[in-house]
Amino acid sequence: MGRVKVQKMPTIRRLPTYLYRLNEMRKEGTSIVATPELARYMDIGEIVVRKDLSITGVTGQPGVGYKIDELIAAIREFLGWNVETKAVLVGAGSLGSALIGYDGFEEYGLSIIAAFDRDPAKAGTVMRGRPVIDMVELEGFVRNHKISMGILCVPAAVAQDICDIMVKSGIRSIWNFANVALKVPADVIVQREVIAGGLALLSVKRLRHFAETDDEEE
Amino acid sequence: MGRVKVQKMPTIRRLPTYLYRLNEMRKEGTSIVATPELARYMDIGEIVVRKDLSITGVTGQPGVGYKIDELIAAIREFLGWNVETKAVLVGAGSLGSALIGYDGFEEYGLSIIAAFDRDPAKAGTVMRGRPVIDMVELEGFVRNHKISMGILCVPAAVAQDICDIMVKSGIRSIWNFANVALKVPADVIVQREVIAGGLALLSVKRLRHFAETDDEEE
Repeated sequence: MGRVKVQKMPTIRRLPTYLYRLNEMRKEGTSIVATPELARYMDIGEIVVRKDLSITGVTGQPGVGYKIDELIAAIREFLGWNVETKAVLVGAGSLGSALIGYDGFEEYGLSIIAAFDRDPAKAGTVMRGRPVIDMVELEGFVRNHKISMGILCVPAAVAQDICDIMVKSGIRSIWNFANVALKVPADVIVQREVIAGGLALLSVKRLRHFAETDDEEE
Repeated sequence: MGRVKVQKMPTIRRLPTYLYRLNEMRKEGTSIVATPELARYMDIGEIVVRKDLSITGVTGQPGVGYKIDELIAAIREFLGWNVETKAVLVGAGSLGSALIGYDGFEEYGLSIIAAFDRDPAKAGTVMRGRPVIDMVELEGFVRNHKISMGILCVPAAVAQDICDIMVKSGIRSIWNFANVALKVPADVIVQREVIAGGLALLSVKRLRHFAETDDEEE
């Protein structure tokens, strides 16, 4: 079985940023992009850009660059973002509302169709165009709408309980913003988002232990 | 000059998660942690755990494990989190308020001492214990308080303008949550946070292009 190599994770993390820039360029009417231009935008070396993009199966033409349409399609297909994924978000606090309000997700094939919260004052309201529903309805809603992804924005103390409900209802991938490691069955995938991970990178760069580099060549 | 190798980025991103768990264990009165236990918590292989932690200069004792106190101190020192960094946050919308409300930052040496917003209705209020100040006062405040870090939570369209004010006022590291590549002088460090990066990882794991692995051995 193929596996996500730890070394490929920074590449995969960067793909949405390429996608964002490529979509911008397409809107501006550009059809070809050269590697140096992408490297400047991404603030990494050209060799890394070429390696990054080769993960999608697309290779640029030497001296010319990448066809933007082709590259956008390849990145979206590689990530599975050419197919819509329906998600629910649980925990309509400030982080949850920031995520619901993020326009870009539609472009990433992610459709957050409802938010759930245990606060009775929030249930029945509409947040950024999505209904906020009482937590007790989570299981039924997920089953009815055949939701496959859950976004967890609740406090750490209740995250495992909500996770268990998600799993029981049929959710098979969980984007976890709670600061806790979740226990799930082997067929459920969890991506834990640690906001401080970026802060750690910034801190290390600041200390100039190192400056950032692109020397992925062996 | 040393540089941050692209391959080290996942390790650095994981350090706050180790730190979080180690602090929890210390609170529970534990003084030694074995590698397999950390590997289970992190959901990665033992080899990766050992490689990750070796970046801090600490090595575990074979068959025993790591001294928790020593490891916590080494991680904090490696990240520079043993010294307090004062930061301002600009853009007191939903993401900004989620970040201000995050308790964990204090433990990471990050002290967000004020938020700035151009909305006159917000200026003068207090958000999660921090003053919200009118944007026009940003430059003077940063100079007066010798702030070295800025956290940017404004819409993409105004991010470069705010970034320019930050740089002019003396800020030398910027944690950028706006969906735009910022232009800064060579001595300013920007860490761009792309929330969709984690979504990309989750998507790829879901597709089972691959499952996650730890095979960093050559």
